[in-house]
Amino acid sequence: MGRVTVRRPVLKVSPAGARRRPDALAAEEPLELRVGGGALAVTMRTPGHDVELAHGFLLTEGVIGSREDVASARYCDAAGPDGRNTYNVLDLTLAEGVPAPDHGVERNFYTTSSCGVCGKAALDAIRLRTRFGPEGDEVRVDVSVLTSLPDTLRAAQRVFDSTGGLHAAGLFTSDGTLVVCREDVGRHNAVDKVLGWALLEGRVPARGQVLMVSGRASFELVQKAAMAGVPVLAAVSAPSSLAVDLATEQGMTLVGFLRGPSMNVYSAAHRLTGTTAVPPSE
Amino acid sequence: MGRVTVRRPVLKVSPAGARRRPDALAAEEPLELRVGGGALAVTMRTPGHDVELAHGFLLTEGVIGSREDVASARYCDAAGPDGRNTYNVLDLTLAEGVPAPDHGVERNFYTTSSCGVCGKAALDAIRLRTRFGPEGDEVRVDVSVLTSLPDTLRAAQRVFDSTGGLHAAGLFTSDGTLVVCREDVGRHNAVDKVLGWALLEGRVPARGQVLMVSGRASFELVQKAAMAGVPVLAAVSAPSSLAVDLATEQGMTLVGFLRGPSMNVYSAAHRLTGTTAVPPSE
Repeated sequence: MGRVTVRRPVLKVSPAGARRRPDALAAEEPLELRVGGGALAVTMRTPGHDVELAHGFLLTEGVIGSREDVASARYCDAAGPDGRNTYNVLDLTLAEGVPAPDHGVERNFYTTSSCGVCGKAALDAIRLRTRFGPEGDEVRVDVSVLTSLPDTLRAAQRVFDSTGGLHAAGLFTSDGTLVVCREDVGRHNAVDKVLGWALLEGRVPARGQVLMVSGRASFELVQKAAMAGVPVLAAVSAPSSLAVDLATEQGMTLVGFLRGPSMNVYSAAHRLTGTTAVPPSE
Repeated sequence: MGRVTVRRPVLKVSPAGARRRPDALAAEEPLELRVGGGALAVTMRTPGHDVELAHGFLLTEGVIGSREDVASARYCDAAGPDGRNTYNVLDLTLAEGVPAPDHGVERNFYTTSSCGVCGKAALDAIRLRTRFGPEGDEVRVDVSVLTSLPDTLRAAQRVFDSTGGLHAAGLFTSDGTLVVCREDVGRHNAVDKVLGWALLEGRVPARGQVLMVSGRASFELVQKAAMAGVPVLAAVSAPSSLAVDLATEQGMTLVGFLRGPSMNVYSAAHRLTGTTAVPPSE
């Protein structure tokens, strides 16, 4: 865990002048995920919780649905120039009967081998099918619980305080209790680490739970949450159009701009309690 | 350009109660890039400036080095469910003699076909070779110019104001004049759009120019800047460890936490003027 932050010299410039001092930076290193001996993907991540990250990635890419689908996960003997193990290559073996992913399953980039995408709706072309749709989840969350989440998440962010450089994701119970928090230079990695942890703990599908992210809500994050069966996703900042569309379609409650006592609810507002003056149609 | 923002109903919850109203969201849609008839990559982006995005992507992935390397770029006749062109598939043809990229060049994810990566330093495995290293660029930038950039960039962000959901990137001259600003749901796309525009305008290599980004500085963004020959990269927020390492190695000036009158300089501080009390070794 010593590699979560890295010290580098920095020249601090201010009206008082410039001075050189050591600074703590959020560590960013590539992690190569190998499945069945073949390279599947490389992600730039903050070292630590790599096994959780791998499980979360495979879950949210639709490769696995339970921790039993992974037979083993271990670091490859990958030595850097100094002869030490880099701990940047993780070898995964899937359980018997679990189909290996197509070579080239990538997050953010989904290549197609034919022109088939031209004739399809864009959303269809990039969408994964979730095994754990949140639609039927009847959990209810009070708005006062939601407004408490940002402070709780922030308090749990250990590395951010020293570097200012990390995204966070946290899984909460419906009464606002923090279950797990993870930080990473990549917000998708922070979410994968949380959801991979949940899978390993037997908490997937994540029924009745709230996933909170420190930044914006993109299509990708909504998709990840949907793949893990999360019924409520809350973000400090704005959602994108496609994030709202997918959340609506999946029956997921999507909350954005969760700041102070206020928030915007973009979909499935029926799961929120404690609001006043909500029109009956909500 | 009507698709840069999208209107959706939102339930606004505050201590005063809850009310439903329309809200403007940053549009996010997939863009498939096809080269020579084959799908190369799909990126989730804010529609608009797609040709610039494509040029920037190919430039910063090392596929092209000048606008002459692209023979043509046009939207595919890709109809959505409503029968209209989605404008989400872009067909590119490379000029004769320009080698086609390997199928599966992806940003963020770099797959390898053998175990070769195990024996190499991680940084080497993911690094691209730039044709336009910033090392010899003798531009000098005053700190008062740098401190003016965030406000200038912010003022140029049209969509952010209405949605709160967009990253921005801007290219500036060394006296702080904004040359171009682009916004996107993905910060790498915002940078690709700016650098693609610069390529099309004959401004690559971007000698003597400053690239500013609204968020954090990751390895990926430093790499993109290096591929375009940008000598100075400034970010509002924190850099990662690998971003600093790559900037140092490339001789690029990397500035982070550029806020108000202060900033942190992580590499090649010799390009900054106007600081007081800078040790002679800087």
